[in-house]
Amino acid sequence: MRTELLTMLRETNEYVSGQKICETLGVSRTAVWKAVNQLRKSGYEIEAVSNKGYRLISIPDILNLHELLSRRKTKWIGVDTLCYETIDSTNAQAKRLAEEGYDNGTLIVADCQNAGKGRRGRSWESPAGTTISMTLLLKPDINPNNASMITLVAALAVSKAITKLTGVPAGIKWPNDIVMNGKKVCGILTEMSAQFDYVNHIVVGIGINVSTESFPEEIRDIATSLRLETGKLISRAELIETVWEYFEEDYETYLQTQDLQNLVKDYNARLVNMHQRVKVLDPKEPFEGNARGITPKGELMVDTWESRKLVSSGEVSVRGIYGYV
Amino acid sequence: MRTELLTMLRETNEYVSGQKICETLGVSRTAVWKAVNQLRKSGYEIEAVSNKGYRLISIPDILNLHELLSRRKTKWIGVDTLCYETIDSTNAQAKRLAEEGYDNGTLIVADCQNAGKGRRGRSWESPAGTTISMTLLLKPDINPNNASMITLVAALAVSKAITKLTGVPAGIKWPNDIVMNGKKVCGILTEMSAQFDYVNHIVVGIGINVSTESFPEEIRDIATSLRLETGKLISRAELIETVWEYFEEDYETYLQTQDLQNLVKDYNARLVNMHQRVKVLDPKEPFEGNARGITPKGELMVDTWESRKLVSSGEVSVRGIYGYV
Repeated sequence: MRTELLTMLRETNEYVSGQKICETLGVSRTAVWKAVNQLRKSGYEIEAVSNKGYRLISIPDILNLHELLSRRKTKWIGVDTLCYETIDSTNAQAKRLAEEGYDNGTLIVADCQNAGKGRRGRSWESPAGTTISMTLLLKPDINPNNASMITLVAALAVSKAITKLTGVPAGIKWPNDIVMNGKKVCGILTEMSAQFDYVNHIVVGIGINVSTESFPEEIRDIATSLRLETGKLISRAELIETVWEYFEEDYETYLQTQDLQNLVKDYNARLVNMHQRVKVLDPKEPFEGNARGITPKGELMVDTWESRKLVSSGEVSVRGIYGYV
Repeated sequence: MRTELLTMLRETNEYVSGQKICETLGVSRTAVWKAVNQLRKSGYEIEAVSNKGYRLISIPDILNLHELLSRRKTKWIGVDTLCYETIDSTNAQAKRLAEEGYDNGTLIVADCQNAGKGRRGRSWESPAGTTISMTLLLKPDINPNNASMITLVAALAVSKAITKLTGVPAGIKWPNDIVMNGKKVCGILTEMSAQFDYVNHIVVGIGINVSTESFPEEIRDIATSLRLETGKLISRAELIETVWEYFEEDYETYLQTQDLQNLVKDYNARLVNMHQRVKVLDPKEPFEGNARGITPKGELMVDTWESRKLVSSGEVSVRGIYGYV
């Protein structure tokens, strides 16, 4: 009921009469009044004027189920949404829920992680109130060998969503970091549980620094937030919704061919490595070359003096040599 | 203490004086007497003769921690062994323990599974007392793309162990079924949790029908047990130990090169598909040909009229056309 009320007030953006709310939602005046007060307690500013009705004045930057569900426009992502104040790690929780039988499209969102994970077991900081920590559970009927491309689809969605809401371009550092001015604003950790010809489940974890005002000394040169880069305070709930709207569309495009052939152009347009000199940290034989975008399989094309090489994200990491990447 | 006593009695295979047991294990006569009685209650026949000592007469076919640990000869597999009377699925339990931080080499054994899993979510029956259900947890530092070969190493180990203990050859049906007279005696389900360039963990689940006397109508033509095929009653605990001894050696060989180059010969010698006509059930384009063994990457080589094709276990399943495979 609070979810539906929130949707009505946000979408109207004008006074909505108590009468109309009662009729639309099929509840009593008292029930409406109670719901309004509960929302106010959560931080929503709601004006109430006699003979006019209720009007939403401001929305707090909080993450709760009502705020998330009242914004949802996706078809199947987040139909089942679970929202936590604090959790160990949204990826860990998603994996547990997957084993319990939760379905494709389940979305886990947390205001704060106390054991957030980065790649290769590194930790990822996600303090309360300023960051987004979320994980989408997927159970696609695909070949496990094609799964790694999903992490590039996620990067594309985050890049699009940030650019849309802030008006400032957010680039992709291959394969799946989102950077602004050469600093990381978002990390993506995609994990898979698979048999060798069958995907049990995939979890796509996304961490975004939204309104962080400062970072610890040791990561200040490599980490940043949307607020620091754009000067804007973005609603986390709105960004979450926007990310999954873009993702849902591009993921369905990916599923049709099980590759990125129809997304390559979009991805390469946002690739900060494009035409940049990169060092490929192949453990056996590191080499340098010019990055030329991704293939439909998500590999990075790197031209060396002799030949074009295809770099898989499973094999190496890539570092820019000149410039800010 | 029961574990050590069991080891002494089994290895001596003669009377062991109470005095010697007390000295070796550093315990009192009463403690020895108590341990003997506990073992007898579990089903062990232990003779006690004055002035001679204790002698182990018969060992029940039970799976408990003492029986398993007193037989262990592996270096690192099963140092941490967990033994259950009943569990949902040893793979599911292994995955849970992996998330809790259990280490490489942890072995999970169950007398009975009530939600055993086969490939692609099928069920796998493992009634109490007659079957082996076990899962090994591995955390190797390998490229996830090389992980599927581990399931072939497991098949090789099971084939070797069965052949050793029964004296009857147990063949491998590519990639990882163990068959006798064309019927399946063992299934292997290997599952992986991975990031795209990093293995979180791998669980190798092995189910063996040991002393099953009959199978339900619907699987009688495709399933069998060691007892039905060889007429012998094999100790499950001994078979478990033998499987992991072979596995440990071959797995270390695999790890050195992250492929099967040094195991191909061994594997192909046991491959029932070898030089047989097979149908490759590629969903896009099924084809027939003659199987010619595996490559160092674990792919099945299939010669068609036109060319040699390499079949990955991730892509297709293979069925024999003639004969019993």
